[in-house]
Amino acid sequence: MFSGDGQCLSKDLGLRCGGVQRRMREEELDAVLISTNLNNLYLAGGVFAGFTYLQAEGEPLFFPRREGGVCGERVHAIRKPEQIPGVLRELGVSAPKCLGLEAGAITHSTWLRLSTLFPGAELRDCTGLLGAARAVKTPYEIALMKKTGSRHAMVIGQFPSVYEPGMTDQAWMIEMIRLMLQAGSLGIFRVAGESMEAFMGTLLAGDNGGAVSPYDFALGGTGLHPSYPVGQCGVKLQKGMTVMADIAANFYGYLTDCSRIFSIGRIAQRASDAHQLSIEIHAALAAAGVPGASCEALYQQALRMAAAGGFADCLMGGAQKARFIGHGTGLVINEQPVLGARSTAVLQEGMCIALEPKFFIPGTGAVGPEDTYLVTSQGLRSLTPCPQDIVEV
Amino acid sequence: MFSGDGQCLSKDLGLRCGGVQRRMREEELDAVLISTNLNNLYLAGGVFAGFTYLQAEGEPLFFPRREGGVCGERVHAIRKPEQIPGVLRELGVSAPKCLGLEAGAITHSTWLRLSTLFPGAELRDCTGLLGAARAVKTPYEIALMKKTGSRHAMVIGQFPSVYEPGMTDQAWMIEMIRLMLQAGSLGIFRVAGESMEAFMGTLLAGDNGGAVSPYDFALGGTGLHPSYPVGQCGVKLQKGMTVMADIAANFYGYLTDCSRIFSIGRIAQRASDAHQLSIEIHAALAAAGVPGASCEALYQQALRMAAAGGFADCLMGGAQKARFIGHGTGLVINEQPVLGARSTAVLQEGMCIALEPKFFIPGTGAVGPEDTYLVTSQGLRSLTPCPQDIVEV
Repeated sequence: MFSGDGQCLSKDLGLRCGGVQRRMREEELDAVLISTNLNNLYLAGGVFAGFTYLQAEGEPLFFPRREGGVCGERVHAIRKPEQIPGVLRELGVSAPKCLGLEAGAITHSTWLRLSTLFPGAELRDCTGLLGAARAVKTPYEIALMKKTGSRHAMVIGQFPSVYEPGMTDQAWMIEMIRLMLQAGSLGIFRVAGESMEAFMGTLLAGDNGGAVSPYDFALGGTGLHPSYPVGQCGVKLQKGMTVMADIAANFYGYLTDCSRIFSIGRIAQRASDAHQLSIEIHAALAAAGVPGASCEALYQQALRMAAAGGFADCLMGGAQKARFIGHGTGLVINEQPVLGARSTAVLQEGMCIALEPKFFIPGTGAVGPEDTYLVTSQGLRSLTPCPQDIVEV
Repeated sequence: MFSGDGQCLSKDLGLRCGGVQRRMREEELDAVLISTNLNNLYLAGGVFAGFTYLQAEGEPLFFPRREGGVCGERVHAIRKPEQIPGVLRELGVSAPKCLGLEAGAITHSTWLRLSTLFPGAELRDCTGLLGAARAVKTPYEIALMKKTGSRHAMVIGQFPSVYEPGMTDQAWMIEMIRLMLQAGSLGIFRVAGESMEAFMGTLLAGDNGGAVSPYDFALGGTGLHPSYPVGQCGVKLQKGMTVMADIAANFYGYLTDCSRIFSIGRIAQRASDAHQLSIEIHAALAAAGVPGASCEALYQQALRMAAAGGFADCLMGGAQKARFIGHGTGLVINEQPVLGARSTAVLQEGMCIALEPKFFIPGTGAVGPEDTYLVTSQGLRSLTPCPQDIVEV
C-alpha cells in the first residue's frame, strides 16, 4: 500500500483484490504473479518496480525490486524475482498449483523467466481476468472518475478561449494541452495493447478526420510525421471545417475520455445533422445501457440509428472505419468492454464507458461528441458534464 | 517504404536492413518476423500496423493488417498473421529454418501465436540483434539526430524566458513543454523496457532531485501522483535551489537527450563545484569515447573523477543511485549501449550516446548537464550545442 493515502484507499484496495480473487476462484487459479505497472498500480494504489503476489484468499504480498512506492508489513524487498519463492516459503505460503501470469501484457522473455519460479505449477494467462476486474470500478475509483470527468469538462470549456483565427490544428492543440496540464493533468496516457501508443489525444480538423491511421482509435488522422501517424497534421484551420478535440484527462491515474466539436464559422447542414444524430445515439444508448445490456446489441443499435438517419457510410470514419462505438475506460483508455461487433460482453454496474458515435463528413470533418459514462441501475450517467453541441469559434 | 519520403530515405532503409542482415548471418538466422511499432518504424521508415519479414539476404516484405503507412510493391495486405506463410509460398520464399521473433518486446501471447506460423522452425529472440543494429546510426539517421539536437538546444535556450518568480516546478515544466511542442516536438516519447514509461521528461527542483522513483532513469523525483511517480512534485521554486530540466526532443521520430541546470538566484558553492566537475567528466569522456572504447571503462573513469573531486557520494542520485552515466539514444531514449557497471559493450562509430554525469547536492538539488553525442573517430562530438553552464534565473 502507498503511504499517506489513508484509510479510504486502503479499504478500496481490499475491494479491488476481492474482485480479482472472486474471478480467480471461478477460474480455479491459486495465485497470480503480477509484474506490469498497470496491474501493480491497480492492486497497490501506485506504480512500483516489482511484483504483486495475490492468492485466491488473503491479502496481497508486494515484492519491490527497487526503492520507491510500496511500503508496509506486506512488502518484501527483493533484487530479482527468483527470490520470491524463498520468501513465500519463509512466510509459510504454499506453492501454487495453478498460477496466473500476465501473458497478454508481459514479454515472452519475462514469461520464460517467471515460468521457472514455481516448477510444476500449471501456468495460465490472467491478463483478461485482471482487465475484467479493473473494468468494474470500486466506490473510490468511481469517485476519482467523477472528479476527473468534472474537471475534464471544465477544461474543455476553456478551449475556445485559446483559439485564434489562422491557427493550425497543432497550434490550437498545443494550447489545449497546456490548459489540460495547468488543470493538473499528469500527461501520461496509458493504453493497453502492444501496438497502441498515444500522446494525450488528437485534434482532427477538416478532412484529416477521415484520414486512415495504423492505430486502432475511433478516428485516425495522418499525424505530423510517419513515426507517429495519428492525429493533427499541421493543417491551417479554415472556415467551414469542424475540429474534433479528443484529449483524455488524467489527474489521478484514471482516464476520462471526452471529445467535443468546434466549428470554424458555419458548417454544412449535413454535418450539423450528423452531429445531432450522434447526440440522439448517445441518449438512446444511455437509456438502453443498463446492467446486463449486451455490448454488441448497443453497437448494432447505433448502426441502425446511423442507417435510419442516412449516415451509415459516415459512421466511425471515412475510407477506414472503426468497428466499435464505445469502450471501457479507467487506468487505461481502452479498458474492457468494447461496444463493438462480435463483443460477447454485457454491461455491469460500476463500469465506466466512453461512448463515441462519430461521423466523418467529407469536406467538413469529424462530428459527434464523446462522453464517459458510469453504468448505473438507471442506465448510463455522464461523468463528463459539458454541453454536447458544436461550439462555433 | 513510406510514400513521399524520396530516394534518400529509400537508400537509407537499405542500409538499415543491411545492418540487421549482417548480424542475422553472424547469428545464423534465416529470417526475422517483426511486429513492434519500434522495429517496423526502423525498417519501413514509419509506423504501420502489421509485420515486417526480413530474410538474411534480399529486401524486406511488409504485411500490414490495417490501412495506413507502408505502400509499394513489397507490401502485402493481410487480415491476420496466419496468412503470412501462404503469401511467402506464393512468392517462392522458402520457410525459415531458424526464425527470429522479438521475444524481449512482444507479449507472450503474441509469441505463442507467431510461433505456430512456421512449424519446425527453430525460434530465437532477435530483440537484442535489432537493438544492436539500431544503436549504430546510418547517415540519414545521423542527419536527423543532428537536426533534432540543434533544435533541441535552441528550445532549451528559450526556457529562462518563460520562468516567473514564485512558479512551481510543474508550472515551469508546462511552459517548457509548450515551447518544445511549438518547435515541432511530436510529444510521443518511446522508451524500451516493459516497466518504463515517460511523459516527455522531468523537471527536478531542489531536494526532489534526490527523491527515489521506481523508474530506472538517471535521477528520480517523486512525481505529482503515485500513479506516475517520477519527476516534478509541485514544489514552489525558491532561492538557492537548482532546477534540472531533462526533456527529450522528438521532431522526426529520433530522440535527443539533453538536460540543463537553472538556479533560482545564487546556489551553494559545493553545488557549483559539482556542476563544474560534471562538465570536466563530459570533456574527459568525450575525448576517451572513440570507437572501441569500453562502456564500462568510461563509467569507471567517471566514478574515479567523481571520487577524486570529493563527490563520490553524490554521483547519480541521493538515497538511490543509478548505476550508469550514459546510454544510447535514437528511436527510443534508451538504445544500446549502457555506459554502466558490468557493460560489455564497446563504442562504435555512428552510435549516439547521451552522457549524464549528474550529482545530487542535498539542500540545493541536481546539477550536471546532459548532452547527446555522436561517436566519431575523433571521440564524442556533441549534437546538442548549448552552453553547459548553470543559468541563473
